[in-house]
Amino acid sequence: MGTVRIGSTVIGGGTFAIIAGPCAVESQQQFLKVSMFLKELGVQILRGGIYKLRTDPNSFQGLREEAIAWLPEIKQHIGLPLVSEITDPRQVEKLDPVVDCYQVGTRNMYNYELLKELGKTRKPVILKRGFSALIKEWLLATEYLLAGGNDQIILCERGIRTFETFTRNTLDLAAVAYIKSKTQFPVIVDPSHAAGSSDLVLPLAKAAKAVGADGVLIEVHAEPSQALSDADQALNFMGMQALFKELS
Amino acid sequence: MGTVRIGSTVIGGGTFAIIAGPCAVESQQQFLKVSMFLKELGVQILRGGIYKLRTDPNSFQGLREEAIAWLPEIKQHIGLPLVSEITDPRQVEKLDPVVDCYQVGTRNMYNYELLKELGKTRKPVILKRGFSALIKEWLLATEYLLAGGNDQIILCERGIRTFETFTRNTLDLAAVAYIKSKTQFPVIVDPSHAAGSSDLVLPLAKAAKAVGADGVLIEVHAEPSQALSDADQALNFMGMQALFKELS
Amino acid sequence: MGTVRIGSTVIGGGTFAIIAGPCAVESQQQFLKVSMFLKELGVQILRGGIYKLRTDPNSFQGLREEAIAWLPEIKQHIGLPLVSEITDPRQVEKLDPVVDCYQVGTRNMYNYELLKELGKTRKPVILKRGFSALIKEWLLATEYLLAGGNDQIILCERGIRTFETFTRNTLDLAAVAYIKSKTQFPVIVDPSHAAGSSDLVLPLAKAAKAVGADGVLIEVHAEPSQALSDADQALNFMGMQALFKELS
Amino acid sequence: MGTVRIGSTVIGGGTFAIIAGPCAVESQQQFLKVSMFLKELGVQILRGGIYKLRTDPNSFQGLREEAIAWLPEIKQHIGLPLVSEITDPRQVEKLDPVVDCYQVGTRNMYNYELLKELGKTRKPVILKRGFSALIKEWLLATEYLLAGGNDQIILCERGIRTFETFTRNTLDLAAVAYIKSKTQFPVIVDPSHAAGSSDLVLPLAKAAKAVGADGVLIEVHAEPSQALSDADQALNFMGMQALFKELS
Repeated sequence: MGTVRIGSTVIGGGTFAIIAGPCAVESQQQFLKVSMFLKELGVQILRGGIYKLRTDPNSFQGLREEAIAWLPEIKQHIGLPLVSEITDPRQVEKLDPVVDCYQVGTRNMYNYELLKELGKTRKPVILKRGFSALIKEWLLATEYLLAGGNDQIILCERGIRTFETFTRNTLDLAAVAYIKSKTQFPVIVDPSHAAGSSDLVLPLAKAAKAVGADGVLIEVHAEPSQALSDADQALNFMGMQALFKELS
Repeated sequence: MGTVRIGSTVIGGGTFAIIAGPCAVESQQQFLKVSMFLKELGVQILRGGIYKLRTDPNSFQGLREEAIAWLPEIKQHIGLPLVSEITDPRQVEKLDPVVDCYQVGTRNMYNYELLKELGKTRKPVILKRGFSALIKEWLLATEYLLAGGNDQIILCERGIRTFETFTRNTLDLAAVAYIKSKTQFPVIVDPSHAAGSSDLVLPLAKAAKAVGADGVLIEVHAEPSQALSDADQALNFMGMQALFKELS
Repeated sequence: MGTVRIGSTVIGGGTFAIIAGPCAVESQQQFLKVSMFLKELGVQILRGGIYKLRTDPNSFQGLREEAIAWLPEIKQHIGLPLVSEITDPRQVEKLDPVVDCYQVGTRNMYNYELLKELGKTRKPVILKRGFSALIKEWLLATEYLLAGGNDQIILCERGIRTFETFTRNTLDLAAVAYIKSKTQFPVIVDPSHAAGSSDLVLPLAKAAKAVGADGVLIEVHAEPSQALSDADQALNFMGMQALFKELS
Repeated sequence: MGTVRIGSTVIGGGTFAIIAGPCAVESQQQFLKVSMFLKELGVQILRGGIYKLRTDPNSFQGLREEAIAWLPEIKQHIGLPLVSEITDPRQVEKLDPVVDCYQVGTRNMYNYELLKELGKTRKPVILKRGFSALIKEWLLATEYLLAGGNDQIILCERGIRTFETFTRNTLDLAAVAYIKSKTQFPVIVDPSHAAGSSDLVLPLAKAAKAVGADGVLIEVHAEPSQALSDADQALNFMGMQALFKELS
């Protein structure tokens, strides 16, 4: 613990990591375009959803096995590590060839059977906080990973559910400060999901850095209005450039 | 929809069902004792956890495959249907011989891969509301089951997470009234998890019936203080007798 | 404590009181019409706002001193006691001639200077729970009244603020059961504000009675759609008749 | 709007103000000691409670009129403006000689009769967000001040009430970014009440600055463990020195 390596980048230990990419891998072309832009900008770790968990079953569920088929070649071309969400313990094998760091999403923080399965791997895991998870429960969830021998854990604060409706979630930066002061885990922040609108992403990312977070997870899309998911909160390329310049 | 049958008992359609049993199946002796007591009392459906989801990985995780081995024989002796929680899509096959109705717990309401798997079965599913699930999200989760062709769905309100700490959760009976007025789903209430203490179970169960719920799900233990989980909220036999007498 | 008398009606001690009336006193004619209807129905205590607390300063703020001028004569004609909200310590003197029971609204539960002033009176006080008041804070607020020598206190649960948006507030009936089991205070329930829509009022009122509440506080209007406040949740006369018949 | 002047210090408009002082004025000696320390440090605006709103009526309620008697002389000696909370519309006259900026506390954000009274004054008002106030309600509350002609309004985010218990409240910095982007009001942050423990005050204050707040409100005490209120969250002099150095 203390630091976790994704590809050749160290998370924790005093640096500030910027992980960025689209909410979902939507096509070869879309993913290549945003990834090459991010690489040129200096981003060292990509994110992109292959299996998506959507509240509405009629919403886009991710390209799934289709993307897994062509991602190895595209990734080799890009040359950056990829963070992607896992939503089922049976996906470990499928995702293994294309994913450098598993992400456990908000909806699965309490999915202990999935955590046990990831505990058996030796790849890093970004564990997002549940919609209404107590800090105590979040930290206990890490023990399901640790029990299996996987201590490559990065916690990710992404906003909690409150009565407020002007923002999508309420970003709890005190939780970041608390966990940094009491544990050894690297903690990153996802300001995109917290805010729910792209204009709040930069100020929240700056606040995340100021409070002591070890990095941020940012949604970027070449044309946010055309994104198949999370269109309102994705930064466009210009927004991402501004954020990268301010934070790195 | 409208009504769902578990064993020979119909849930919905104007009757009030009392489903009861221990939080967890702890041993043959414990399960037999509480089940025979409940059968004699007139309870027609049993509950009992085989796979348990616990916040702390060091807490009792259920007897799991061990219980599945001996449950068929015990169940035949008792002669009542069993509701039990499923926590992983890979458990469907294992649980099939011993479970008459799957329960999807609070922690798994958003586990859509699990819901898709249960959508393929034709057994009834009790879908508990997530800790902080909007009614809208809860209803959308049913569509993952319906999409697979399984319309044997019973919703279960079990309290939501709020700022209040004197009760374990805040039982949202208006959600029950709302769903009954807008949908065809049977809705039951779990007052045990909502209350978190046994003395509040009876008044909340009565309120559930009055608000229009189709039944309740009650935790019972021969000696609550010895229960391996949820000791504070389980009714003892005397408490269960009183509840059954008042509500049936 | 244990029971509190409003006019000649005892609240607490095993009976179930139905307090009803318009959200606001809007005119002599409106108040007389709804009051005479309620009296004929058998309702024994009226409610009606004279000073209104509205989130938007441009919303109707109540008739205020204008209503106080003509209420004594109208009240004599009607012959029923009146519950009305007090929103400022300086209103005690003004309201004294027309009010038989003060109501402290949700927005003022923490207004301790107001509570101290009401502690000096000897009239009953209905103390509503704050939007997000802990049960502990609610009970401590009563001590501001008790310290002044006024023990004529009725607590009123009216729903708490949560993430749910399909209902206006989340009615916390477990709080009612908890307080009834631990204290001597009569507790009533306001299902109108909790629900936010008139069709949920009856099922919630029935649940309130079943959980052990000592009464309900119901908003009624001759023509709800014309009400100057809370139009969506007021019962019309037919709805009120149905509720009265079921609950008394 | 846009900027508000307290004494000779401008809040808003690109500067970052540090307002500091004890939770409560406890004695001449205590207040003088902490004030002179803060003045020497470079702090330009003091805070200190004269009338305290406490959940428990047996807790210290502030020195009240006793402090008002001697504060003018002490203040002249110190030479800094004072922010202090007003808890009753009848206190305006009493506080006028000693207060340079009124603070409306969390418990009184919905106390519209108090806001109307402050709308008639021409002194600046710091309006804290209610425990569970929607941003919409908070902004509407300012209209009660504006309607009276007082536009000297500073909003103060101090944490909202959520399910989390490891922190006293959940600081909502997205609300700060939101309000700064949509309105002209200066917004400050109270990290002391949000955190509830002194070790989280500095990281949250840094995050507040980074997110775009116009200042912070900090509780300081010569000996926090001896404070009559909020002992856990007050900074000692060394902590305050560190914070001032980092943020100014």
